[in-house]
Amino acid sequence: MANMFPFSAADMQTKEPASLCDLNEPLIDHSEGQHFLNETFKIIMEEVLRKGTDIKEKVCEWKEPEELALLLDLELRATGEPRHRLLQRVKDVAKYSIKTSHPRFFNQQYGGVDYHSLAGRFLTEALNTNLFTYEVAPVFVLMETEVLRGLRQLVGWTEGDGIFCPGGSTSNMYAMNLARYRLFPEVKSQGLWGLPQLTVFTSPESHYSVKKGAAYLGLGTDNVILVKVDDGGRMIPADLDEKIELAKSQGAVPFLVSCTSGTTVQGAFDPLDHIADVCQKHKLWMHVDAAWGGSVLFSKQHRHLMKGVDRANSVAWNPHKMLVAGLQCSVLLLQDTTNLLKQCHSANATYLFQQDKFYDVNLDIGDKSVQCSRKVDCLKLWLMWKAVGSDGLAERVDRAFIHIRYLVEQMKKREGFHILGEPEFVNVCFWYIPPSLRGKEGNADYQDRLAKVAPVIKERMMKQGTMMVGYQPLGNRVNFFRVIVFSPLVSQKDMDFFLNEIERLGNDL
Amino acid sequence: MANMFPFSAADMQTKEPASLCDLNEPLIDHSEGQHFLNETFKIIMEEVLRKGTDIKEKVCEWKEPEELALLLDLELRATGEPRHRLLQRVKDVAKYSIKTSHPRFFNQQYGGVDYHSLAGRFLTEALNTNLFTYEVAPVFVLMETEVLRGLRQLVGWTEGDGIFCPGGSTSNMYAMNLARYRLFPEVKSQGLWGLPQLTVFTSPESHYSVKKGAAYLGLGTDNVILVKVDDGGRMIPADLDEKIELAKSQGAVPFLVSCTSGTTVQGAFDPLDHIADVCQKHKLWMHVDAAWGGSVLFSKQHRHLMKGVDRANSVAWNPHKMLVAGLQCSVLLLQDTTNLLKQCHSANATYLFQQDKFYDVNLDIGDKSVQCSRKVDCLKLWLMWKAVGSDGLAERVDRAFIHIRYLVEQMKKREGFHILGEPEFVNVCFWYIPPSLRGKEGNADYQDRLAKVAPVIKERMMKQGTMMVGYQPLGNRVNFFRVIVFSPLVSQKDMDFFLNEIERLGNDL
Repeated sequence: MANMFPFSAADMQTKEPASLCDLNEPLIDHSEGQHFLNETFKIIMEEVLRKGTDIKEKVCEWKEPEELALLLDLELRATGEPRHRLLQRVKDVAKYSIKTSHPRFFNQQYGGVDYHSLAGRFLTEALNTNLFTYEVAPVFVLMETEVLRGLRQLVGWTEGDGIFCPGGSTSNMYAMNLARYRLFPEVKSQGLWGLPQLTVFTSPESHYSVKKGAAYLGLGTDNVILVKVDDGGRMIPADLDEKIELAKSQGAVPFLVSCTSGTTVQGAFDPLDHIADVCQKHKLWMHVDAAWGGSVLFSKQHRHLMKGVDRANSVAWNPHKMLVAGLQCSVLLLQDTTNLLKQCHSANATYLFQQDKFYDVNLDIGDKSVQCSRKVDCLKLWLMWKAVGSDGLAERVDRAFIHIRYLVEQMKKREGFHILGEPEFVNVCFWYIPPSLRGKEGNADYQDRLAKVAPVIKERMMKQGTMMVGYQPLGNRVNFFRVIVFSPLVSQKDMDFFLNEIERLGNDL
Repeated sequence: MANMFPFSAADMQTKEPASLCDLNEPLIDHSEGQHFLNETFKIIMEEVLRKGTDIKEKVCEWKEPEELALLLDLELRATGEPRHRLLQRVKDVAKYSIKTSHPRFFNQQYGGVDYHSLAGRFLTEALNTNLFTYEVAPVFVLMETEVLRGLRQLVGWTEGDGIFCPGGSTSNMYAMNLARYRLFPEVKSQGLWGLPQLTVFTSPESHYSVKKGAAYLGLGTDNVILVKVDDGGRMIPADLDEKIELAKSQGAVPFLVSCTSGTTVQGAFDPLDHIADVCQKHKLWMHVDAAWGGSVLFSKQHRHLMKGVDRANSVAWNPHKMLVAGLQCSVLLLQDTTNLLKQCHSANATYLFQQDKFYDVNLDIGDKSVQCSRKVDCLKLWLMWKAVGSDGLAERVDRAFIHIRYLVEQMKKREGFHILGEPEFVNVCFWYIPPSLRGKEGNADYQDRLAKVAPVIKERMMKQGTMMVGYQPLGNRVNFFRVIVFSPLVSQKDMDFFLNEIERLGNDL
């Protein structure tokens, strides 16, 4: 920004710019604005949706940060810019952004595109609704309730509560706060000081938001106790039971078990039914972080992975992941029917949640949230669900499993691919072993050299823009790739491409 | 939803639907999808943007909840629906939603429309970017940094840090967490148990998120100490100083003062410079909740309201409010240059924030957030800022003040309007005194009768759909209206309309 205003007496001047004079004209030119929006829409259709989903086009257009900053000319200035330059900016933003809808974006648990969902998102943006009262959000108060009901029904609950949150981390933290409040409602007014030390149990492969939540909510990451997992990354219920007993014997008060349905890296499903037995025995709140895996509940064939979820107290589930609803779309579902969510989070602001309104104020759901302004995240999911039905969503889930099965079979046929374990879900974790390392497992520098393979392949694929896939170490296993397949735009040919491309990029390493 | 799947042995079946067979075709029909998106765009343009901003059209189409639920047919079913029915649903959602862009939506601190911002929002949705690493969000990592720099510069800081958050409440809570961590970094791992009782200071007219934050972060609402305000709703620094001394004498550890620039109801600005003296004396973190008022910093004429803000440690500011950037657009700005945000919030997940990447991993800003998935909220503000410049944004702020000045002058000329105090900002709080109550201030039932006026007028305006404005009680003052003017679509004629309409609706009460 070129000009900066210091605080000075001169600030107090009351001279008005000439353009303020005509106070009967709005400051916005609708015709010009709508023209600009129309032109932007065309760019979106061409650059993001057509080219951005075309396998003949790049997934990314890599630029070094310094170069990209120059290209984008990000600086904010005192004066505005003409239409043609602004439209060029729209094109540039589209051009240099990652095409997350591209069939070869395998990098993360979001991506792909559903046009009905996207239509719902455009409508959401245009309506600019704040979801806190029926007064300002009549359609969305009712719609959110219905979508939550539909999702709860898949969990197996005919009653309950829930809320859309800005992401799975927030959903998980809400569960933590609710569990704490149920046990010690005085925490809301008095804080943690008077309470015994509270402990949370989760697996080392659970999402990092469990620890972030413990820190944020004042519990401390040391009070997150990690329960052992089996080879597939699934929590071991017997170890959970032991760890709970141990914590109790040390004077702590266990209050929450945070299980995972679909771990981030391996896609593992904790054995919910057995964990529920342990939670029941110790009377602990059972939370299921199904941000990633929850969508299997749509599939008759695969929902068994979450057997026992109906015994949980709460479930976090992100339809923006496997269902391609678009960022963000995350829900916290609750079995509770006692209005715990509102009791725990409410502040009863009189300027917003007046009790003398002319309609049923139970429809003013905003006080269930720790947010005040809350974005509408239900419309995109609702419209997509209406468009393809539960059956259509189930088909997408089933299809992803089929693609993964094919991918794994092909990997087994190829010499350079070594999977870390049979996938339970749609994550496949594997090492690519370049020819120079094959048969050298016994060498002292094998692990060090293997660890460097994935980062180099990743750099090459990004610089060439052909595809994107993530890698990471885990425990004592050095860098391996984690490929994720769920986008409804992906076909079997993309699986073949994926394998060929890894080989092409890593063959000489 | 019509069908529900029980958990049973039958779930394990492996039969595949026929439609899964052609695995080389994507499940999404691009041509059909793009057609649908095009049609939706036309509906948005006509229903939301043209009619929705036309003063000859209604602001809202009131329906009782039961009736609206029937009209919308919200139920989610097993099978999908044809295009024409889905497009009718898009129309219905638009029709029955509140037109927050309408010039006569005076209900809350969001509303209005800026087409450049809206174009940025559509592009954001289409790109579906997750803002956590440079790898997946190269454009937006750089853009967010630049926008934060521009906003910090308006605060008066040449260096610092910051982050976009899902709403002002979250921004305020981040400040609370940072202040706590700066004083006692061990809180992150050990929780609050080993720490002395921590206290927060704010005014009774501050936003309710301060209390919500104290509850959520484990501090407890009792540890939010309310500092007296003057008649205009501004925190009294002398009382702050006394309350801090008192808390200290009782063994508590004061750690944060949360001031407000633009209170929710009255639009009051706490005297930041004097509060900064008190914070400096006691070495407390000074946070400024400028979610509503922050945009005055663009105006040479009005930025004096926030004199002293450059002495704060953190500032929350929501450009989705006065700047019409669209929900959500909220920032937390920090003077800190020690990377406190990342130290306090990071979890160092190895699957996401790998340290062996081929680019500078300091660009992977995601670990500054307590969220994992984080929506891109900077593009809409950046594009709007590029379009009209700082000068254009300043003009909008200045114009809002002029409209409010006119509105207040007109109120003073009319018999039935009684303002609660001279507005500092663009909130006007007033009672409408219907003819039957004029001159009856001495009657025993006057306050009771006056309290019922605003709710009835509100009900009438909503059922007729002519405009929307909020009301509330405050302290010992019974229900009064709070009108807020900031939308760039508003003209002086709308001010006249507002007054006439209140009179028309309340004249017979």
